[in-house]
Amino acid sequence: MPDVNRQIVLASRPEGEPTDDNFKLIESALPVAGDGEVLLRTIFLSLDPYMRGRMSAAKSYAEPVPIGGVMEGGAVSQVVESHHANFKKGDFVVGSTGWQTHSVAKGEALGKVSIDPAVAPLSTAVGVLGMPGMTAYTGLLNIGQPRPGETVVVAAASGAVGAIVGQIAKIKGARAIGIAGGKRKCDYVVNELGFDACIDHRDPDLAKLLAAACPAGIDVYFENVGGHVSEVVFPMLNNFARVPVCGLIAGYNDSAPPPGPNMAPALMRLILTRRLTLRGFIVSDFGSQRGEFLKDVSTWIAEGKIKYLEDVVTGLENAPRAFQGLLRGENFGKLVVRVAEPV
Amino acid sequence: MPDVNRQIVLASRPEGEPTDDNFKLIESALPVAGDGEVLLRTIFLSLDPYMRGRMSAAKSYAEPVPIGGVMEGGAVSQVVESHHANFKKGDFVVGSTGWQTHSVAKGEALGKVSIDPAVAPLSTAVGVLGMPGMTAYTGLLNIGQPRPGETVVVAAASGAVGAIVGQIAKIKGARAIGIAGGKRKCDYVVNELGFDACIDHRDPDLAKLLAAACPAGIDVYFENVGGHVSEVVFPMLNNFARVPVCGLIAGYNDSAPPPGPNMAPALMRLILTRRLTLRGFIVSDFGSQRGEFLKDVSTWIAEGKIKYLEDVVTGLENAPRAFQGLLRGENFGKLVVRVAEPV
Repeated sequence: MPDVNRQIVLASRPEGEPTDDNFKLIESALPVAGDGEVLLRTIFLSLDPYMRGRMSAAKSYAEPVPIGGVMEGGAVSQVVESHHANFKKGDFVVGSTGWQTHSVAKGEALGKVSIDPAVAPLSTAVGVLGMPGMTAYTGLLNIGQPRPGETVVVAAASGAVGAIVGQIAKIKGARAIGIAGGKRKCDYVVNELGFDACIDHRDPDLAKLLAAACPAGIDVYFENVGGHVSEVVFPMLNNFARVPVCGLIAGYNDSAPPPGPNMAPALMRLILTRRLTLRGFIVSDFGSQRGEFLKDVSTWIAEGKIKYLEDVVTGLENAPRAFQGLLRGENFGKLVVRVAEPV
Repeated sequence: MPDVNRQIVLASRPEGEPTDDNFKLIESALPVAGDGEVLLRTIFLSLDPYMRGRMSAAKSYAEPVPIGGVMEGGAVSQVVESHHANFKKGDFVVGSTGWQTHSVAKGEALGKVSIDPAVAPLSTAVGVLGMPGMTAYTGLLNIGQPRPGETVVVAAASGAVGAIVGQIAKIKGARAIGIAGGKRKCDYVVNELGFDACIDHRDPDLAKLLAAACPAGIDVYFENVGGHVSEVVFPMLNNFARVPVCGLIAGYNDSAPPPGPNMAPALMRLILTRRLTLRGFIVSDFGSQRGEFLKDVSTWIAEGKIKYLEDVVTGLENAPRAFQGLLRGENFGKLVVRVAEPV
């Protein structure tokens, strides 16, 4: 076992898009697990858009990462040494253990990975069977509430959350329309994931193409991007449409409000006249539904009703570049970093 | 009985604030009630902010009033002649019969007024026991869902809807904070209606005063005004706050989006990070709750738990001026026009 811990820390706060300079790879002493704690070796680190928020000084629903602090992130890890009764050496766990090769965590902050290897690989514990999958499941079913025959629209449709949103919409009998960046992603969303259509958000005819794909309007818009996609979708929402507000990646790099006119009053007016429901959520708000989620989605995977794609980058040192690409939509599928091989 | 019908029609569409020129008083022949219809004499015409929307060409949740068409509005009327089994001469009814002294309506489009004169006067059928009261009741209880000890904020707090929102919030054990225009209205809201505090929206220290009145933040914001009041309230919303979106009177006269910056992305970000629920509604969305509403609110009035104030203007010809004043907040209490005396 190496006696150093490699960590990626926040070197400075980004203005606009993060750059290499905002991250720094350092080496530190291996942490020591105290009573009730567990020493972990990171296997798969998850990279997700929300991490951009933690890099800014502004408080969101969570505190920002301090300058010099280890970048936050969920990971699948393997237990090296356990001082907690629930875990033993060799166990696989998930937890918010950060961008580093090793970590120490309290046992209570960890979940045991109980994925049947015949159903899905270990990495899915931070993917379709982890936070992103549960985000899709809980947001769509609790807030979106798609009914048979309704139309569900989701952007970043080949991504970790969007792909699952559309497939669950189909399982519930709704039409699923994706929006994604580029022909390759769109083809995958329709041909492999079974969405009814997928539109390239870079197409200048986005509004026209989306309207054609949604002849009966839009009943559920799973909001995970914001920006110009939102502006195109909102006018097509039907009366009583539901909008789970899950993420706004298009604006995460903005350091100031965009120029006018001010469209906030028009948004409020649309909420009023169409009687829309907009509701923000984060996955932990529905933590009590974890059991149902795992049961349902595991079953759907085993039945071939839910497919997933992972974009695996190897080596912790490549996490900053991969993360920058994620914010530009360069990943294809759920982005994970293979930090080490399990033993 | 006079043989003419006096009507106020839409002469032209307003740009910005409506003016006298947008309305025209005309006389026409008394309408004739056909089979299944009822001839009515208007007693109390209700004036409400939503009517501004009907004056514009843009489709809202309802079609605009055509140029030359009778202005839309709810009223309490008395039956002059009935060709419908459910109604007889002398009955009092409510319906959307417009700004006119007489009307003909299908029996199915009318509701019989069944207000106990010992509890409240006839005019309340378009006030606290009518559309505005039911708007407050259904929006607050279905969407706002105030819990004991929570803080509910409502603007136009001395108005037809706001006054009832705050009093029901108190009945449900929540704190009620009003916002209103001027000291006289604010004093009334606190001293007569029993709100915990009321802030003058014209006070340059609005934000500071509101923050002081809401030391634990805001859990429910009943949105019936929009504009600068909204901008002050939204940053004070707590995690998981609920916002019934009922009206946006501050923007009804706007003919174009206000200048930038564009605050729509910031609004979406607040919805996400605070996990807010915004939901638009109109009272008819909760039509099935009419029975409960009438029972509860009548009981609360009889018990002295709900008070109401009416601002009564006499004469149909004064409706346009009174309506213009309503949009400027000049009324004090629910604005109604006494069109004729009952016989």
